Amino acid sequence: MQVYLDNSATTAAHPKVVDAVVEALTNQYGNPSSMHSMGVQGEKLLKTARRSVAKAIGGSEKEIIFTSGGTEANNLAVIGTAEAYKKSGRHLITTSVEHPSVLNAFKYLEENGYDVTYINPNAQGLIAAEDVIDAVRKDTSLISIMHVNNETGAVQPIQAITKALKKLKKKPLVHVDGIQALGKLKVSVKRLGVDLYTISGHKIHGPKGTGALFIKEGTKIQSRQIGGAQEKGIRPGTENVPGLCGLGVACDILIDKVEADAKRMQEIKEEFWHAINEALSSIKLNGGLNDSFAAHVINISFVGMRGEVLLHALESKGIYVSTGSACSSKNKSYSHVLSAMKMTEAEMEGAIRFSFNAELTSEEIEYAIQTVIESVKSLEKIIKGR
Amino acid sequence: MQVYLDNSATTAAHPKVVDAVVEALTNQYGNPSSMHSMGVQGEKLLKTARRSVAKAIGGSEKEIIFTSGGTEANNLAVIGTAEAYKKSGRHLITTSVEHPSVLNAFKYLEENGYDVTYINPNAQGLIAAEDVIDAVRKDTSLISIMHVNNETGAVQPIQAITKALKKLKKKPLVHVDGIQALGKLKVSVKRLGVDLYTISGHKIHGPKGTGALFIKEGTKIQSRQIGGAQEKGIRPGTENVPGLCGLGVACDILIDKVEADAKRMQEIKEEFWHAINEALSSIKLNGGLNDSFAAHVINISFVGMRGEVLLHALESKGIYVSTGSACSSKNKSYSHVLSAMKMTEAEMEGAIRFSFNAELTSEEIEYAIQTVIESVKSLEKIIKGR
Repeated sequence: MQVYLDNSATTAAHPKVVDAVVEALTNQYGNPSSMHSMGVQGEKLLKTARRSVAKAIGGSEKEIIFTSGGTEANNLAVIGTAEAYKKSGRHLITTSVEHPSVLNAFKYLEENGYDVTYINPNAQGLIAAEDVIDAVRKDTSLISIMHVNNETGAVQPIQAITKALKKLKKKPLVHVDGIQALGKLKVSVKRLGVDLYTISGHKIHGPKGTGALFIKEGTKIQSRQIGGAQEKGIRPGTENVPGLCGLGVACDILIDKVEADAKRMQEIKEEFWHAINEALSSIKLNGGLNDSFAAHVINISFVGMRGEVLLHALESKGIYVSTGSACSSKNKSYSHVLSAMKMTEAEMEGAIRFSFNAELTSEEIEYAIQTVIESVKSLEKIIKGR
Repeated sequence: MQVYLDNSATTAAHPKVVDAVVEALTNQYGNPSSMHSMGVQGEKLLKTARRSVAKAIGGSEKEIIFTSGGTEANNLAVIGTAEAYKKSGRHLITTSVEHPSVLNAFKYLEENGYDVTYINPNAQGLIAAEDVIDAVRKDTSLISIMHVNNETGAVQPIQAITKALKKLKKKPLVHVDGIQALGKLKVSVKRLGVDLYTISGHKIHGPKGTGALFIKEGTKIQSRQIGGAQEKGIRPGTENVPGLCGLGVACDILIDKVEADAKRMQEIKEEFWHAINEALSSIKLNGGLNDSFAAHVINISFVGMRGEVLLHALESKGIYVSTGSACSSKNKSYSHVLSAMKMTEAEMEGAIRFSFNAELTSEEIEYAIQTVIESVKSLEKIIKGR
């Protein structure tokens, strides 16, 4: 049996997504910038996709800018607004547990004359809203904080932050990296009260190479890519129409089932943890089971194991997992997220991320649980035997 | 009958390209950064695609950086090298007939302390190699010049330029935007002697949202996108594996048939021009029929007509053409390329770009020719009748 438990790294495209991609690659392939009807057709496809994305996050069509993925959208949000608002202040706030596409964008800004405050999480990976608010200064122009952490599933208190900001005279912009939230939590940029929100296609059973940035009407932004007039000049370059059609369809699909999916993944997560916790000692849950944590991710330290060894042992039985975020998995240093949670070296060394989707069957989950338990026990024997 | 003669704006994906995209969206969907075998599989797909792209342009695998398209690759080449080599000089050379993704990148650099010389073409749209060489100064760090012009098909004298540069003590880098050349001319970055070369997927029957930049080994480049370690950190972000597999297949397909395709398109171009030129007066060929012009594009001014009106008249009969490059077609001002060729307003107003592919049948071409002739004649009657 093959059980893919690395859905936070990437997902398989939904069959309806594939159909949409193929249609735009073959029959409706016009360049949206072309003046003739095939161009108009391409533009209509984009409009439909844009409407679907807007609906999925509770924004309006004109507030959606398509990008080549989450990294580009995060870069555009962070650097694009920092530059556009540099006259109103060069102080920025983010957290130490962001994705590299946010974190390294802030490092770049630091090298270019900006002052950045990094907020640390608690031991469970959660950021306190008060810490963010306390860091706000008169010259703070932007706060960037992820909605759901990609390694621990920690849901950050976005609404508490934007609510508290309302009391300030001069409110900084708020950008949220929502890449791991869409499809897992019901997202509404209005209810969250944010100015910018990033999504990515391939985390929600859409195509790789697609993403979008919600930019609240009236927000200034400096474009990063330079060229023609596509995406209002904010993101020039011929639009990836096939991919974006796929992204739109992925959004349409998740809108109706996000709550049921979240419920199903919470069942999986709890079953997974309770079964493993009962069978094994020396394990630690890095995060939690309550609603401060998204249901699709569970990060567990198998203390005394090397995560990489366990990963390959599981893979040999058809179970695919991650030792950290995929983006840093080839980097031998410890995860910056787990480090920021002040975990011990042994805990970080043995950390495995299991990430689910709602279509996993009970048989698959049962097989995965038994395989994890058996693999850990047999590795423990080998280690003790040394 | 429907005849798509706007292949310079975008192309339909080849069926084998579609198969490759679908396979990577559904079965082989692992994230290349994942440590398990599904990730390794994704990495292998990328490696295969990279080898195909390298082979198509005569470079080596390790010199290919994948991007989200031609615009991103052009931006990266121009701004990335200008910034990486700014200590060796802030003077740059380009031409006035480049694509907006190059031209506007230079405008951006001008605003940021660089000095740019823009070389003008002759009346046929051709750049003289001597003009480029004469513009080189001690502090020139980069020359960027397109291989084939997207509006006129003009083939610029890249090899003559790089040959002449060899005689200089300090040779500036040479970047070539080859988006309209690949699949139309036999491309060899080695023979051309260039340091950077841009290609785009959707112009060669590959997917939109894909491109690549050849970066000659040893060339320094400052990354534009910021994030993880993908593409050696030069272009971070989860790779668009499905799209790039499609790009690789598109390259595989064109390698074997580029010369036969070019021959076929030259036949089409000559037949097209001779038939139209014989039947209509007040027309002008913007470019030429000889080998200084790529075979897939013919730009003709129907003097006295409004290009937009003729475009829609042709479209009503199923013929899809362009009034300029698609990227500037929604902009009401005249084409910057035709302006640089010092064409009259009436010539620019009546300019139509027909762009071919090698699969067009004789019946389709015959229908297109007759439809153009009839449409122009009937529009002339209406104009004279006013």
